[in-house]
Amino acid sequence: MRKIYVIGIGAGDPDHLTLQAAKAIGRTDVFFLLDKGEAKQSLIDLRERLIRGYSHPRKRIVEGRDPDRDRTPADYTGTIADWRTRRSQVIEELIAEHLKDDEIGSILVWGDPSLYDSTIAILEEILGRGAVTFEFEVIPGISSVSALAAKHRIGLNRVGQPFQVTTGRRLAEGWPEGVDDVVVMLDAQQAFTGHPDAEIYWGAYVSTEDEILAAGRVADVADDIVATRTEARERHGWIMDTYLLRRRPH
Amino acid sequence: MRKIYVIGIGAGDPDHLTLQAAKAIGRTDVFFLLDKGEAKQSLIDLRERLIRGYSHPRKRIVEGRDPDRDRTPADYTGTIADWRTRRSQVIEELIAEHLKDDEIGSILVWGDPSLYDSTIAILEEILGRGAVTFEFEVIPGISSVSALAAKHRIGLNRVGQPFQVTTGRRLAEGWPEGVDDVVVMLDAQQAFTGHPDAEIYWGAYVSTEDEILAAGRVADVADDIVATRTEARERHGWIMDTYLLRRRPH
Repeated sequence: MRKIYVIGIGAGDPDHLTLQAAKAIGRTDVFFLLDKGEAKQSLIDLRERLIRGYSHPRKRIVEGRDPDRDRTPADYTGTIADWRTRRSQVIEELIAEHLKDDEIGSILVWGDPSLYDSTIAILEEILGRGAVTFEFEVIPGISSVSALAAKHRIGLNRVGQPFQVTTGRRLAEGWPEGVDDVVVMLDAQQAFTGHPDAEIYWGAYVSTEDEILAAGRVADVADDIVATRTEARERHGWIMDTYLLRRRPH
Repeated sequence: MRKIYVIGIGAGDPDHLTLQAAKAIGRTDVFFLLDKGEAKQSLIDLRERLIRGYSHPRKRIVEGRDPDRDRTPADYTGTIADWRTRRSQVIEELIAEHLKDDEIGSILVWGDPSLYDSTIAILEEILGRGAVTFEFEVIPGISSVSALAAKHRIGLNRVGQPFQVTTGRRLAEGWPEGVDDVVVMLDAQQAFTGHPDAEIYWGAYVSTEDEILAAGRVADVADDIVATRTEARERHGWIMDTYLLRRRPH
């Protein structure tokens, strides 16, 4: 039986790699790489560094072309589902062509595969079609959320309290019900600016050489974060940022 | 300046350790251990194994006695705050007595220090009193939540959707508003039984040798989980379980 590892490699610091992930990389015969068609060179460099550092000399690396994706779709969920399906077809072909019986293939995932990542769903979709069969195993990684909290030296929750993890798109519709602490991922619209009284703990490229951190009352720091974010995005060609918003208990 | 590392060591599998955590253990002069006064021997064994495996030969280990804590308090938040303060006094004394200038001390934390753990707040409380000074740094770890999701091979969120992380105590008050996916920690009352139509992905002692997993519609699996949980708790003397509840989108 063929086997595939979905390996969480952490949020950017090469030392986020777990021993479990390093061992899985060492057992891998074929690495499947899909490039996002964006200039995230520092992340691609990290992935190559980890493969070089922990893989065995006879491993193969095969690359697929990530399908294009509409970044501002009218129908968000439908567009993502369609993109996932096209992505799963690319990966299915790579597996069928390159992974022999009894071999181990790996897909390396930034952060943790359980958090706003599509790799697990894509493998389930391939298995659901039934044309290609394999076992798969997920190896957890340090998420950008854990990395952000560590750098700010904060807990995500307050004592006995819940928190929500959501997207910028959702936060733009209003503060979520039932929580005073909100972790926001994938925020292209800087939705935090709508909550001036909250405290923000913000970070971009967290745990990489390019890390930028900022914290304070949104009313005091939002302009700085927006300017910093715009400048950094232009300089690097992309940005990956995450933040915690914390308001006084309601 | 004295320095203290708060090191996330993962959810139970020794291979959850990150390279960053292993290196921090290797730089540590003094390990501060607080035992919970409970028989979590397998976790204590793991901690000792990691210290033995990655520390330098001249390190010291100092142990404090964790203050007792009322497990069923009338005033939950107040009781926790009081327990934290007493705990911070124990740690403050250990630091003052055992950590010399320019030395590095470490506190090892199960899972990830940002998730339902009090170590960061305790160090801030010690610094706030001003009698003992040190720098401190947080090293993220694989949380029990990431480990649970990996073992069940699921994402915590659905596409573009939020999720909430909360406690059994809160879930017992009703399904949280605004989310269809809920991660529950610290559930001594098996609050999932109140949501028979949801899907549950449950795990105890996840990623240890004693791991137990169960999944399915709550109505179908709740009795089994309750019985398994009771039996396991009696056998081991303690239980650490976590779960995701997922309902059809409302």
